Amino acid sequence: MDKDALRKEPLKELIPATARGEATRRKLLDSAEAEFGSKGFHTASVSSITQRAGVGQGTFYLYFRTKEEIFSTLVKEIGRNLRKEMGVAVAAGSNRLDAERRGLEAFFAFAQAHPGLYRIVQEAQFVDEPVFRDYYERLAKGYSSGLTAASAQGELSPGDAEVRAWAIMGVGHMLGLKHCLWQGKAPDKALLDEIMRFVADGIAPHPKSGK
Amino acid sequence: MDKDALRKEPLKELIPATARGEATRRKLLDSAEAEFGSKGFHTASVSSITQRAGVGQGTFYLYFRTKEEIFSTLVKEIGRNLRKEMGVAVAAGSNRLDAERRGLEAFFAFAQAHPGLYRIVQEAQFVDEPVFRDYYERLAKGYSSGLTAASAQGELSPGDAEVRAWAIMGVGHMLGLKHCLWQGKAPDKALLDEIMRFVADGIAPHPKSGK
Repeated sequence: MDKDALRKEPLKELIPATARGEATRRKLLDSAEAEFGSKGFHTASVSSITQRAGVGQGTFYLYFRTKEEIFSTLVKEIGRNLRKEMGVAVAAGSNRLDAERRGLEAFFAFAQAHPGLYRIVQEAQFVDEPVFRDYYERLAKGYSSGLTAASAQGELSPGDAEVRAWAIMGVGHMLGLKHCLWQGKAPDKALLDEIMRFVADGIAPHPKSGK
Repeated sequence: MDKDALRKEPLKELIPATARGEATRRKLLDSAEAEFGSKGFHTASVSSITQRAGVGQGTFYLYFRTKEEIFSTLVKEIGRNLRKEMGVAVAAGSNRLDAERRGLEAFFAFAQAHPGLYRIVQEAQFVDEPVFRDYYERLAKGYSSGLTAASAQGELSPGDAEVRAWAIMGVGHMLGLKHCLWQGKAPDKALLDEIMRFVADGIAPHPKSGK
């Protein structure tokens, strides 16, 4: 183990606030994503993460105290990045329904680009439950504020924005599990059309509107 | 360890096909549900399960080879029981939308009655992924055959039954996570109304029908 790992200073001060330090931290997080995503939390090890990153094991402890800490950091980072990418996608929508479609599309693309995403985020409920809840609660918050505004403007029918937010997250979660994770292919345009048909119109017959 | 555990016959023949044997197996499965549900798979142990069940550790091995085996058996059993309870609830529906409502209600009630359910089923994706997939695929199959028939009869609008099945499972999963697991309270009537409003009508404005 690198001698630096034996230093006792608080971790915050150990993190090198330099470009090189940031690059190393980035390498460790990317390696952790690959390690946790493929092996799962319990089988994953700090030594495998540092091997993947090409750094000494002592270097790891300059950035993270434990395997749990890098795991939780990763889940928070996945959440931030996902919210950011979905936010950009949603903002490009021409109306709220189009925005919802783009948001789901961005979610599926993100899941596809990060094969470890599902495993890591889902495993978080057993490793660090507060971080897992926070992941969904933040995502729901973004969703429901957009839905509330759209309902007020008549772009959506009236309805409980929070229920809708969690329901749409559930739709994304389960279809993402099936298509991105198990079939290895994000929903294509035709499938996304069907998913949005459900989100937009539900399953009831709508005789008056001829649907 | 009970000497019986040392016998080498195939496990099938070891399982006592008697009422007493069945009762012991039941006690072990109930204890495993409590153990895995509260501690998670990795921390749970066979010795804690047998202690909870009030049987010797050797007795465990008359019924299950390993901790993995009782875990997977439990997930399959949860799936069977859930499908059965949902099936009974759905069959009592006066039409397909009412049936969907009753199905979701039964799911929430089941999750509420089995606090370990979420943890166990979700953890299955890391312990025995085929059993986890099978759990959802069987549930989806039941859903989509009902939805297909209802669409054909005009009780639902036309639409892809499989997409709808996975979407509705996602709605149940995420709202169940939020309400049953985190808030400890299955959705009440008003909340179920809102959830069904989403499932039935979606979020789009329906100008022609005045919704």
